[in-house]
Amino acid sequence: MRMPLPKPFSYSILLLLLFSFLSTTISTSFDFQSSGNDLKDVYPEILRDEAVARLQQLGQISDAEGYLERTFLSSASVKAGNLIRGWMEDAGLRTWVDSLGNIHGRVEGRNASAEALIIGSHLDTVVDAGIFDGSLGIISALAALKVLHVNGKLRTRKRPVEVIAFSDEEGVRFQSTFLGSAAVAGILPASALQITDKRGITLQDVLKENSIDITEEHLLQLKYDPESVWGYVEVHIEQGPVLEWAGFPLGAVNGIAGQTRLQVKVRGSQGHAGTVPMSMRQDPMAAAAEMIVLLESLCKHPKNFLSYDGNCKSSILESLSNSLVCTVGEISTWPSASNVIPGQVTFTVDLRTIDDTGREAVIYELSSRMYQICDRRSVSCTIDRKHDANAVICDSELSSQLKSAAFAAVKRMRGEIHTELPVLMSGAGHDAMAISHLTKVGMLFVRCRGGVSHSPAEHVLDEDVWASGLALLAFIETQL
Amino acid sequence: MRMPLPKPFSYSILLLLLFSFLSTTISTSFDFQSSGNDLKDVYPEILRDEAVARLQQLGQISDAEGYLERTFLSSASVKAGNLIRGWMEDAGLRTWVDSLGNIHGRVEGRNASAEALIIGSHLDTVVDAGIFDGSLGIISALAALKVLHVNGKLRTRKRPVEVIAFSDEEGVRFQSTFLGSAAVAGILPASALQITDKRGITLQDVLKENSIDITEEHLLQLKYDPESVWGYVEVHIEQGPVLEWAGFPLGAVNGIAGQTRLQVKVRGSQGHAGTVPMSMRQDPMAAAAEMIVLLESLCKHPKNFLSYDGNCKSSILESLSNSLVCTVGEISTWPSASNVIPGQVTFTVDLRTIDDTGREAVIYELSSRMYQICDRRSVSCTIDRKHDANAVICDSELSSQLKSAAFAAVKRMRGEIHTELPVLMSGAGHDAMAISHLTKVGMLFVRCRGGVSHSPAEHVLDEDVWASGLALLAFIETQL
Repeated sequence: MRMPLPKPFSYSILLLLLFSFLSTTISTSFDFQSSGNDLKDVYPEILRDEAVARLQQLGQISDAEGYLERTFLSSASVKAGNLIRGWMEDAGLRTWVDSLGNIHGRVEGRNASAEALIIGSHLDTVVDAGIFDGSLGIISALAALKVLHVNGKLRTRKRPVEVIAFSDEEGVRFQSTFLGSAAVAGILPASALQITDKRGITLQDVLKENSIDITEEHLLQLKYDPESVWGYVEVHIEQGPVLEWAGFPLGAVNGIAGQTRLQVKVRGSQGHAGTVPMSMRQDPMAAAAEMIVLLESLCKHPKNFLSYDGNCKSSILESLSNSLVCTVGEISTWPSASNVIPGQVTFTVDLRTIDDTGREAVIYELSSRMYQICDRRSVSCTIDRKHDANAVICDSELSSQLKSAAFAAVKRMRGEIHTELPVLMSGAGHDAMAISHLTKVGMLFVRCRGGVSHSPAEHVLDEDVWASGLALLAFIETQL
Repeated sequence: MRMPLPKPFSYSILLLLLFSFLSTTISTSFDFQSSGNDLKDVYPEILRDEAVARLQQLGQISDAEGYLERTFLSSASVKAGNLIRGWMEDAGLRTWVDSLGNIHGRVEGRNASAEALIIGSHLDTVVDAGIFDGSLGIISALAALKVLHVNGKLRTRKRPVEVIAFSDEEGVRFQSTFLGSAAVAGILPASALQITDKRGITLQDVLKENSIDITEEHLLQLKYDPESVWGYVEVHIEQGPVLEWAGFPLGAVNGIAGQTRLQVKVRGSQGHAGTVPMSMRQDPMAAAAEMIVLLESLCKHPKNFLSYDGNCKSSILESLSNSLVCTVGEISTWPSASNVIPGQVTFTVDLRTIDDTGREAVIYELSSRMYQICDRRSVSCTIDRKHDANAVICDSELSSQLKSAAFAAVKRMRGEIHTELPVLMSGAGHDAMAISHLTKVGMLFVRCRGGVSHSPAEHVLDEDVWASGLALLAFIETQL
């Protein structure tokens, strides 16, 4: 028995960090202090202290004893929604709850008929969640708007600003995703009302229990008119390690990765572990192991596997090299006994990249090489595509504005900064994916400790909560 | 989705079959027809028809509805024991049941005080078992003795012959192995009486329920006096594919493999499948896959991994090349979600070979290379030895005699044979392992369809049942 400690991360890893820094240049013309807005202070009381206190308070509202769980329209979710609604009003917003449980807070500004900026995130959580995932985006937005409200500048914006706390992003209750934002974006089919949770209760019944008598027609009416919306901005914790390793509290998001989920089944000859000579085996476990090693190599170094002279342009290869991630998260053997050569091994492949064409090229190359392994080993393989979602590319102008605002906010807190703000791909899905069907979207990521999320260990520094509110404030101040 | 059919086995596999043929030469001096015994016939009625009918009849006696299950001293086991006892008496044997439920049948021969030949196998089964595993060895022995009895030659043997139907080999009920044969061999500790089954009933209680009031002293008295025993012979289905692929109904066994069971735990950095770049991962699944690929290579080609100039003699390497088998039968990830990079992967390694020194060398080399993989990947690994059992080498003279008898039996049934009888390692454990602590042991394997065992699909041809009885008959006729 031996337990070596993990090596410290090597310098090569730090170098590789550069993958996340794209070549977009910083708009250095923007200066937070001289932007013409009278922000002498950086409002630590509202943007940091109150925001952190609210995150803590919201994090206490749970359906479970001892850990955080708030699923779609559960009693804790309704309670959390009411609290958020109160905070919206405290920030000077007019509020309402829509037929899918989304909480809205809006201020019209100087021109109520102008296209509105929507700022959103979700109020639901996973099971045994952290307190920042989703909530941070809502609280930061409300903190920024409260500063404007306190300074009497909320109603002088040139366009309406609306904050939406979406009722369901995690999809825990109905094994769905984006119920709230999909309804607003108009991409939630009417049939969704009939999906059921674990206890067999339909979405429609859950709404009825909460005194919302929704019809299919009501559902379709939830869709915003694209003409009425200017754009969508979302602040979210990174849920990954890049910002922490880069030493930056905030990062701009260039897009949300497209994703394919595969299920690979390898069938061989089941047998007694002692009685079948190595040379006579058709062992699906050894075949699966070879495939997983291949998968890792291909996803680490796509350039070594996909050729320029094929369908794959060099820009696609570049994009894959910067963003491709592949994961085998589940694997099982049948019959799963230590003394039996498995008859079957099943594993999942989760494959994400910002480049949809590149993703197809990777799946083609991967499948073809996996089948070669299967043929060579005389095992029978099936590769099923279980799920596909295309990438969402953030609007470049909106992203550039968010990046400038974030850079200014960090500069304002730290003083001079000599490096660029990181630009990251989001590997996780967000409400912005759904809202991209309605309007242009932009996102800011906030550093989280160790990249940990979906866990009570999830943590964002108070200073970084502050930075996110300050960045949103700067964005609204300068753009609207 | 694609489902290629497994390729037909290549010629290389047939060539590799030679691994199982050791260089022992056949004693061609032995001739079944001219051995001095008046066996004009080959007794198909007793050795084939009745034996097959008895196997079918025994296979119906089950504790379960719809499938075969007979565990230690269950009601079906007691019923099966009574049936076997009747067949023993039908073969002219004096019978008794010992304090651990083993069924004994004995004939003294010309000299009751001479060392006895014991022929044995087990009457218990796994859950959802085949009808041949264990039972075939008992039925074949009784068929051979019945032929002698019918011909009036049973009592003229020069030494006593005793058949034992052991009560527990599979160990299903008490998660043990060899309860019956271990008691006879004197290696079952007195503490075994206190082990409990799933319902918490002790072995002692189970015996009491069957009117066997056993004390620790009684248990120790079950041990046979080594001076009273000449040797032990066991006929068993191969439970592997070698004989079928070699086209032989019977094979001699050179020994029972030693075994080591390892549990490998790989701990890495758990993370979101979308948010951690490939270059920043410490993925225990990819590490485990690399280790499993290594394991397969090492066990297929030990000569490429273990050097002559180390501790490993060329004879050991030769023995490893002929007998080493390694299996990963169980693997699991934590937390086991398709969109989470696992934090931990655990898998089993089952490693068997006839060469105990070689097994140690393989484990040393394997562990050392696995730890190198872990170090290079900055994941933390533990390799625990969960189980070790040394190999049992069959007595060379007894094996040679059994081989000659088997060769003669096959020749008698087929006519001229121009190839050698296969000699195999047993990769599975058998009662002979326990009895080797008491006396010299020898085993014969019987071909089974597709190498399948521990399954209702387990099958032995009627002709092969006949061959096994005929081989035992020839052995007893010529040796005793």
